[in-house]
Amino acid sequence: MKEIIEARLRALRAMMKEAHIDATVIPQTDPHHSEYIADHWQVRRWLSGFTGSAGSLVLTADKALLWTDSRYFLQAAQQLEGTGIALMKEGLPDTPSINEHLASSLSQGAVVGIDGNLFSISETAEMRSDLEKHHISLDTHFDVIDRIWSDRPELPDAPVFIHEVKYSGEEASSKITKILEASGQHGATSILVSALDEIAWILNIRSRDVKCNPVATAFLYLSPLGSTLFIKEEKLSADLVQYLADNGVKTAPYTTLHTFLASLPESATVLIEAPRTSQAVLDTLGSRAIAGASPVPMLKAIKNEVQIAGIRSAMEHDGAALVAAFMEIERMLSDGEKLTELAVSEILTRFRSRQPHYFDESFETIAGYGPHGAIVHYSATEESSSTVEPHGLLLIDSGAQYFTGTTDITRTICVGTPTEEERRDFTLVMKGHIALGTAIFPEGTCGIQLDALARQFLWKEGLSYLHGTGHGVGHFLNVHEGPQSIRLNYMPAPLTPGMLTSNEPGLYRTGVHGIRCENLVLTVQAFTTEFGNFYRFETMTLFPFDRSLFDTSLMTTEEISWVNGYHAMVYDRLLPLLDNDQAAWLREKTLPL
Amino acid sequence: MKEIIEARLRALRAMMKEAHIDATVIPQTDPHHSEYIADHWQVRRWLSGFTGSAGSLVLTADKALLWTDSRYFLQAAQQLEGTGIALMKEGLPDTPSINEHLASSLSQGAVVGIDGNLFSISETAEMRSDLEKHHISLDTHFDVIDRIWSDRPELPDAPVFIHEVKYSGEEASSKITKILEASGQHGATSILVSALDEIAWILNIRSRDVKCNPVATAFLYLSPLGSTLFIKEEKLSADLVQYLADNGVKTAPYTTLHTFLASLPESATVLIEAPRTSQAVLDTLGSRAIAGASPVPMLKAIKNEVQIAGIRSAMEHDGAALVAAFMEIERMLSDGEKLTELAVSEILTRFRSRQPHYFDESFETIAGYGPHGAIVHYSATEESSSTVEPHGLLLIDSGAQYFTGTTDITRTICVGTPTEEERRDFTLVMKGHIALGTAIFPEGTCGIQLDALARQFLWKEGLSYLHGTGHGVGHFLNVHEGPQSIRLNYMPAPLTPGMLTSNEPGLYRTGVHGIRCENLVLTVQAFTTEFGNFYRFETMTLFPFDRSLFDTSLMTTEEISWVNGYHAMVYDRLLPLLDNDQAAWLREKTLPL
Repeated sequence: MKEIIEARLRALRAMMKEAHIDATVIPQTDPHHSEYIADHWQVRRWLSGFTGSAGSLVLTADKALLWTDSRYFLQAAQQLEGTGIALMKEGLPDTPSINEHLASSLSQGAVVGIDGNLFSISETAEMRSDLEKHHISLDTHFDVIDRIWSDRPELPDAPVFIHEVKYSGEEASSKITKILEASGQHGATSILVSALDEIAWILNIRSRDVKCNPVATAFLYLSPLGSTLFIKEEKLSADLVQYLADNGVKTAPYTTLHTFLASLPESATVLIEAPRTSQAVLDTLGSRAIAGASPVPMLKAIKNEVQIAGIRSAMEHDGAALVAAFMEIERMLSDGEKLTELAVSEILTRFRSRQPHYFDESFETIAGYGPHGAIVHYSATEESSSTVEPHGLLLIDSGAQYFTGTTDITRTICVGTPTEEERRDFTLVMKGHIALGTAIFPEGTCGIQLDALARQFLWKEGLSYLHGTGHGVGHFLNVHEGPQSIRLNYMPAPLTPGMLTSNEPGLYRTGVHGIRCENLVLTVQAFTTEFGNFYRFETMTLFPFDRSLFDTSLMTTEEISWVNGYHAMVYDRLLPLLDNDQAAWLREKTLPL
Repeated sequence: MKEIIEARLRALRAMMKEAHIDATVIPQTDPHHSEYIADHWQVRRWLSGFTGSAGSLVLTADKALLWTDSRYFLQAAQQLEGTGIALMKEGLPDTPSINEHLASSLSQGAVVGIDGNLFSISETAEMRSDLEKHHISLDTHFDVIDRIWSDRPELPDAPVFIHEVKYSGEEASSKITKILEASGQHGATSILVSALDEIAWILNIRSRDVKCNPVATAFLYLSPLGSTLFIKEEKLSADLVQYLADNGVKTAPYTTLHTFLASLPESATVLIEAPRTSQAVLDTLGSRAIAGASPVPMLKAIKNEVQIAGIRSAMEHDGAALVAAFMEIERMLSDGEKLTELAVSEILTRFRSRQPHYFDESFETIAGYGPHGAIVHYSATEESSSTVEPHGLLLIDSGAQYFTGTTDITRTICVGTPTEEERRDFTLVMKGHIALGTAIFPEGTCGIQLDALARQFLWKEGLSYLHGTGHGVGHFLNVHEGPQSIRLNYMPAPLTPGMLTSNEPGLYRTGVHGIRCENLVLTVQAFTTEFGNFYRFETMTLFPFDRSLFDTSLMTTEEISWVNGYHAMVYDRLLPLLDNDQAAWLREKTLPL
């Protein structure tokens, strides 16, 4: 592997020399700024040999450095060994940012070259500004990977299919009309959409281009004068082309986007969103671009009645599948069969895939036993996969894609008899989960305002967790979506009726165990008073929490009632989908505390 | 009055015509962007006759419009009657912003003229951007008031005095060194400070230029090559000039600031803060200006040990004065003497002014009886001042300036026997006050993250309040200071040990009553665990809450304990300063719930 990596870096350095580029940055993303990417865009993985899902490679004539975060310190160190690529541990106080490193290590007059397709307008502006202060210039047209990666995977070509209105609840044409109206408020007559989940949502189409994310690789240009979907046309059946045409959308090859944008009249006004549109698009559009907030994320986040009914149904089937899966896990443990973390994942998928409307997992299952549970983004591999023993905590974070909706649930279960610390830790996390889940808040409230409700009980004991408490969830789409977010950072989008968001506080004791309790909650109207509109959360996820882990001496009467009420609802809603054995099992799991 | 106002507007319109200005905006501020301003800067009041503390006048050749907020709708309507100035009710959905109004009512090519001394760089940039979209230009040099306001009050000339290090805890020279070091991180070798409280804090000087705000009108230029205080030099004694010189600070006339800035070498690098520095300063400095975050607000907000000891002492004396004052209020009511809202204010000041180190009120007392309590920024006048009757709620928000510290306390008391609604409302507010006051939170937490702790119990009942929950408080300085703020809006400054902040949730039922419960709290270290540093609040204010208003059936055991513990501390701390009658009174007021 060492020689292969060296040869690839040598080839890239030759390209840099030819283009008079002193340094280049290879990020882990695609021209759509996706969180998860298709193989075609795994350039950093190909160049470095490092397979983690986050990290950037920085190359100069004599140095190769890879920045990644704490999740991957160990893995990156192993995979980079002998390649000559040095690991830069992101987030440690002594580690400079990439821009800081470039500014301090390059000479005045140096040129940094990047592929403007892989950097957003915002990222590019920041990099340019950081470098210019040190008289270093930025070339955004250094796009050479095709020339050195001879066996580069093709763009994905999974077929596109229609996500029927009986599931999505709104015709594509109706959404397009709303989007163009809203774009007009920015003074734009058209809009270019780059994000794959936004395109899928707008057009009611899905595909399998990215693992667990049912999207199609494309760009979408919307205009009252005629819209165009830029996509690998092999992905489209004749019916699909007709369907798009019926919604006023022509198709064009994926690779013709820039030719098309360049041919727009000088008077065109195209709305683009700076943080989620490539610099290359801005370079092509020039003064025709209007940078502004796209209306799409908010429209997409607010689920309609059909979607909400679908989510309720998906949650019932997901819960029923989990009953079967957790029964199987318990059976194996009580029969003394070997149960590994990977096996847990396989069991979940097995039972989910038997449910109606099932399409895929919504992300790779996190099944973390004992200390593995404390690794927040742990994903078991053949090498790491622990065997579950009859003691300790097992954290299981999993979800599925159904045509009716996307699920995402975390349960932490105790395999044997819980210790006092396990019960205390679990109960503190659940108290936060309940406080957030039962909050009532006025119109206009955003996530950062509610986040501390979920953390307050941990904080009082000197405990905390660093991940967000809640992310938006797509509808048969990406399990992570915006614009709302319940977290320590400020994100301005208010929690609005129809939004589906996770409620997932946690606690991670390194080397000991990890706990996370996650339901998906829907923002709904609570009441209107002389003080305005107030909203609350309706819990959508249907599966019991492990009763053995509650320490009721730490809980208020209201908290205990909430758990009992939730468990009663879980039982009632899942019962029609269960056989007798399953019903008996669930009965026991949902007995009052 | 009508004719006078008309004549003044006529004079200003003549100036506009002469300068080819189509519209002008007269804001309510000074070149230091102060919240409260000296008479010299009361231009909007002089031009319009409207005396409210907030609002801007917009004048065109044929129209005069005054924007102000809901606090002043009634008062403005009365004061503007017959002047030809129309009231624009800020915050109502149909009211455009000033910039929107200008953009829509002026023709292309029009010129808006403003006095660049009275608009910050940020405000100017926003206005310019809003207008340029409509091809309207902005002239920031329309500074003509001196020419039309013949009897304009002089700049204030109250003497400046030294705030001794035994109170402030740090020499001016030490602060200057820290500020210049921090400014260097922005690439600046010098800094221009415009905010009056910042200048007073840096130099350990005070004056009486603004009512309740012990500041001196000045600008301060700090540089390692020599610093200059631009100030009306009549305000300085020879000793003061010598004191400043000993700290490396020369003095120059207030009016010579711009000549001085213009004379700086082209290579100078002067740090200025865009939201709190005048556009006029930027116009003069040009490329010598470096816009960045000033280090001063954070340094000023973190009180040192000497200041904290002083605040503790100030709170004891303030509490003792309040015991005497509230006893007097109770005596008058029980003796059937007439007690007005204005009299309440007079009584508070009378007893406070007898305390050692007393200097002034820290703001105009808000004493709101019954429905007046529901007017958030109510200030009683001779006409409005209600007589307190033996029933209902009386809200009293008051504070004082002591050399040792600044106080700010709100108590809501029931004059007769409280109704069930009064007790319920009060208890819900107190539950929020206690939840915030007892919070523990990790390093890096900012106000918006904790704000909902104070609001959660009101929200659950469909109640709310729209003002902030907590503002920073100066040390023998402005009662409102930044950078921290506990409120619905995002302000990034983290709550840091040494910061003094108010904790003041409230509830206002229009036409019925207002409730606010306010203590000042100091951020202090709580503990350090494997999860990092955690902070908590120490309550500094010392005066009981009205026991008759608590509905203990709505409270948890912990909440009741907190009130009892707080009251026990108040009694213990104030006792040494009380006579026997006062001690007996306080004993009864602090009995356990």
